[in-house]
Amino acid sequence: MPFFEKLVTAKDCKARAGVLTTDHGIIETPIFMPVGTQGAVKAIEHRELDENGVQIILGNTYHLYLRPGNEVLSSFGGLHNFNSWKKPILTDSGGYQVFSLKDLRKITEKGVEFRSHLDGSKHIFTPEKVIETQRIIGSDIMMPLDECTPYPATYEYAKKSSEMTIRWAKRNKDAFDNSTPLYGHKQFLFGIGQGSTFPDLRRECMSALVDMDFDGYSIGGLAVGEEAEKMYEMTDIVTNIIPEHKPRYLMGVGTPENILNAIELGVDMFDCVMPTRNARNATLFTTRGKINLRNAKYKFSQEPIDPIVQTYASNFSLGYLRHLFIAQEILALQLATIHNIGFYLWLVKTARQKIVEGTFRQWSNSIQKEMSSQ
Amino acid sequence: MPFFEKLVTAKDCKARAGVLTTDHGIIETPIFMPVGTQGAVKAIEHRELDENGVQIILGNTYHLYLRPGNEVLSSFGGLHNFNSWKKPILTDSGGYQVFSLKDLRKITEKGVEFRSHLDGSKHIFTPEKVIETQRIIGSDIMMPLDECTPYPATYEYAKKSSEMTIRWAKRNKDAFDNSTPLYGHKQFLFGIGQGSTFPDLRRECMSALVDMDFDGYSIGGLAVGEEAEKMYEMTDIVTNIIPEHKPRYLMGVGTPENILNAIELGVDMFDCVMPTRNARNATLFTTRGKINLRNAKYKFSQEPIDPIVQTYASNFSLGYLRHLFIAQEILALQLATIHNIGFYLWLVKTARQKIVEGTFRQWSNSIQKEMSSQ
Repeated sequence: MPFFEKLVTAKDCKARAGVLTTDHGIIETPIFMPVGTQGAVKAIEHRELDENGVQIILGNTYHLYLRPGNEVLSSFGGLHNFNSWKKPILTDSGGYQVFSLKDLRKITEKGVEFRSHLDGSKHIFTPEKVIETQRIIGSDIMMPLDECTPYPATYEYAKKSSEMTIRWAKRNKDAFDNSTPLYGHKQFLFGIGQGSTFPDLRRECMSALVDMDFDGYSIGGLAVGEEAEKMYEMTDIVTNIIPEHKPRYLMGVGTPENILNAIELGVDMFDCVMPTRNARNATLFTTRGKINLRNAKYKFSQEPIDPIVQTYASNFSLGYLRHLFIAQEILALQLATIHNIGFYLWLVKTARQKIVEGTFRQWSNSIQKEMSSQ
Repeated sequence: MPFFEKLVTAKDCKARAGVLTTDHGIIETPIFMPVGTQGAVKAIEHRELDENGVQIILGNTYHLYLRPGNEVLSSFGGLHNFNSWKKPILTDSGGYQVFSLKDLRKITEKGVEFRSHLDGSKHIFTPEKVIETQRIIGSDIMMPLDECTPYPATYEYAKKSSEMTIRWAKRNKDAFDNSTPLYGHKQFLFGIGQGSTFPDLRRECMSALVDMDFDGYSIGGLAVGEEAEKMYEMTDIVTNIIPEHKPRYLMGVGTPENILNAIELGVDMFDCVMPTRNARNATLFTTRGKINLRNAKYKFSQEPIDPIVQTYASNFSLGYLRHLFIAQEILALQLATIHNIGFYLWLVKTARQKIVEGTFRQWSNSIQKEMSSQ
């Protein structure tokens, strides 16, 4: 089996339905991947991810490297054995987190020196080091170390940054090619394209990565503050460059609307903290738009959350869920998270079905209208 | 069917196996009842209570009266409809919580005036009012308003307090007899015995309650700071007074050892925040004793929590569970709560089985020895 197989392309846009094959199972694309930064998706159990149709979760190399640390992960035989999640795992390289440390990090051609946000201890991440660490983590899909160009950036900064990302990409790829998996299952490496909101830099960076022949391509440095239209424009540019038979991953995106629009532009994979983080803030995504459970209008509501999306949380009324939030019950976070994850997975699963049926754009427009009507 | 049926008494002690029959299902005694103060047991889903063998949960009249409030509960048709818990519910009267307010409450013969701990609003609880509120809540088993005598108390205070509890018991009983369930299912009322640690007061109070013929009898005002031996002594005294065919409920108890010893003295029902609260503090109850997951010795442990008690949490290693606590993941609270509730239910279920088999004392001694060996 090839790692990625494109099965169908929509008739009237670049949306695709495909399948990723890993040793921990297949992933039907387009897919949303819940974020499990520290080896757990916040406030939801593995079996609940399963029942909501989750096929792959994220882990974060920076966080896992610091805690529990490579020694623990290694002694357990990797993250799958450590956290007992049996399905595929994708790990971010941690570059994004390290670069966010601002005062605590220093970038050189070699890599990034940084101080742990936990205890101030000094570390260095290089392309070679993050590949080595992801071998220890044993993720199915690995990300390279790149520089997530901050937004806004000058053309000059973005160009320099993107060029370093290209040089690092080569080092990541070499380190990957010169090492082997530790636990007997296959691992894949993506390239991450940068270039800020500059079309020519985006083109140059992604073309250079495509020449290196990665297993898939991530679109990085977007959803960092730019206009949604800019994000779509950049996405459109690079999905024209990435070969058809390679998966495309738009990192850190996004709202349900963002996801549908990016699927239309040929993106296959998404991750975002939004469904889980918003759930913990009492915000639910529904087919009728976002709702805030703290709103007094739900006090007496005996309605379930959503008329279409069914999860375990559908057993409870909006009135009870609101009460749980007001009364600061942990169960509130659990049920809201189950619903939001269920909603995001319903969204991509339905998108896939509509792509296959040839009605994706029509459905996408109508559900987006429905979601914005409230 | 009678409300309570005693099926077996142990050969060499007062331990009993019985069954409580309510319109929301039967309860096999001895039973442990997880505490769901605000209409939810903290950090655990209803279906997880089910899978751990939970047969009845508690709610708290004081908390539910303040939030979501009688108006919401009434509009939903009671707590069962509000929180979607299908099995029996027992409600504490809230007397204990009101009396704990100290500076915010004033006791008179009529009842207790108090200020809400949430917003300072003024309220009064009388025996009549708590019965009325529990009719609105629709709990299967209701508790009367009593004064939980503080410990330590002088003989004089304890006597006055216990006598007021007896006068209030009569008013509770009258209010109960003169009202009817609102939602079509039967409700039962217990009497609560007080008397602090004074044998004659305990005897007088419980005898007076027995004369009023309640559906069951609670033993209140214990596990409030007195020596365990005193608690057992008082329990032993009153279980000799309560008729054999009535259920006995030792309120707010306790450790696994406390529960086993009280079962031996003829107690049928228990509730305590210990399994849920301790879980959230990383303390797990196991057949080999209590363990604190924050302990560094579990960092590399690939063992499950308990060799005997099996729950969903058994799918995870001590090392991973420790990581979840150190990393402050909500999943840590969820899995620890599942385990501790599973452990408490395993304890009473096994106790019941051993009572039936005629080996309760022997088993109780051996498991207590095992639990204290670590």
